[in-house]
Order: sequence, then C-alpha cells, then structure tokens
Amino acid sequence: MQDCIFCKIANGEMGELIYENERAAAFADLNPQAKTHILVVPKDHYANIVDGVPSEVLADMVEAVEHVTQEAGIRESGFRVIMNTGDDAGQMVHHLHMHVLGGEPLGEGLITR
Amino acid sequence: MQDCIFCKIANGEMGELIYENERAAAFADLNPQAKTHILVVPKDHYANIVDGVPSEVLADMVEAVEHVTQEAGIRESGFRVIMNTGDDAGQMVHHLHMHVLGGEPLGEGLITR
Repeated sequence: MQDCIFCKIANGEMGELIYENERAAAFADLNPQAKTHILVVPKDHYANIVDGVPSEVLADMVEAVEHVTQEAGIRESGFRVIMNTGDDAGQMVHHLHMHVLGGEPLGEGLITR
Repeated sequence: MQDCIFCKIANGEMGELIYENERAAAFADLNPQAKTHILVVPKDHYANIVDGVPSEVLADMVEAVEHVTQEAGIRESGFRVIMNTGDDAGQMVHHLHMHVLGGEPLGEGLITR
C-alpha cells in the first residue's frame, strides 16, 4: 500500500531489516519498550490480525519470531508477542505487526491502564 | 498431554468453551484483566508459539480470534492479542494461548514493569 511505512520497510525500501523470509520481515522497533523489541510484519499489507491473513503468511511470521528470538538470545529466557488491533488497543500503524519483547522480566500484568 | 489444564478445557473435558473450530478453542479467562478477556488455544498441545505450531493450527487460532471478537463486540472497537513465552514473560500455563483483551481502552504501554 502506498504511504504505508511498514510496507516500505518490509520490502526493503527504507530502514534496515534484521531478518526476512518469503512472506515476513523483522526489524528493530525505533522506540524500544524492552531491552529487546523487534517488530515482525508481513510483506503484503494486512491492516491487522483479523484482516484475512492467509495461513502461509501467519506461518512465515511465526518462523520469523522463531528466528529473531533465537538470534537475540531470548528464545529460552522468554519473550512476549503482542498484536494491537484498533483504537482500544492503541494501534498506531495499520499494517499488521507483532511486537516481540524480551531480554528482561516483562512484568506479570497484560495491560497498562 | 496428561495433566495439562488447557488440553482438558480445549477438548471439552472440563470448563466451558465459548467457541471452537477444528483445531482451536476459546474460553473466558477466569481472572479477567479487562472487560473482555478470552483465551484462544490450540486443541493439540504446543508449549508456546515457537514449539513448531503448524500453519493450519495458526489459521484456526486466528479464525477463532475473528469469531470471538465479533461475538464479543470488540472487533471494531479494538483488542489486544498477547502470547507469553517462558519465564521473562511470566508464562504460567505451558500450553500455547492467545490472550484476547478488549472492551475498554487498554493503555498504550506494552509491558508492565
């Protein structure tokens, strides 16, 4: 999608990827909220997790999570995956993305209100 | 897996499901952390999101998210999906589960430390 920043990053038109496979890409969050904070996105544009994402795209996103958590050394120590959809969740970029957070204890609560 | 509580719930041996499809099931979290707090799990046992989850299981989990957020009236207002893996994320039940939270503004932070 034109003007979608995550489309541009995922397809190598700006920024820097730390990993990519056929249908997904990963890059560092520019405003990290934990010691490790990586974003995993599909290369094609889907607004969110309930936007008809094909199973092979989901699988490539999860494969990217496996890869980047291993590389970052947080696959064993633990990590949190968060997907925000819509206003109540504060979704800011309307291109599906998984936040992958780790590298330190993340707290036990799930929301921050 | 014997003695796995989410295996038992997902396969109808205890508790109450609010939705199921071929490979996934959804039920209310007993200790809700938002107005709506639903858990979506695979019927087969996977410890977490990096435990070799097949694409068709991922797809059925996401289909369950689509269904339960629609039914709960939070698909448009917004919701957060969280998957915790391992100790740093405070994963308590070692059967893959998506927390689906919504029904109110959830706060902008992603972690709670």
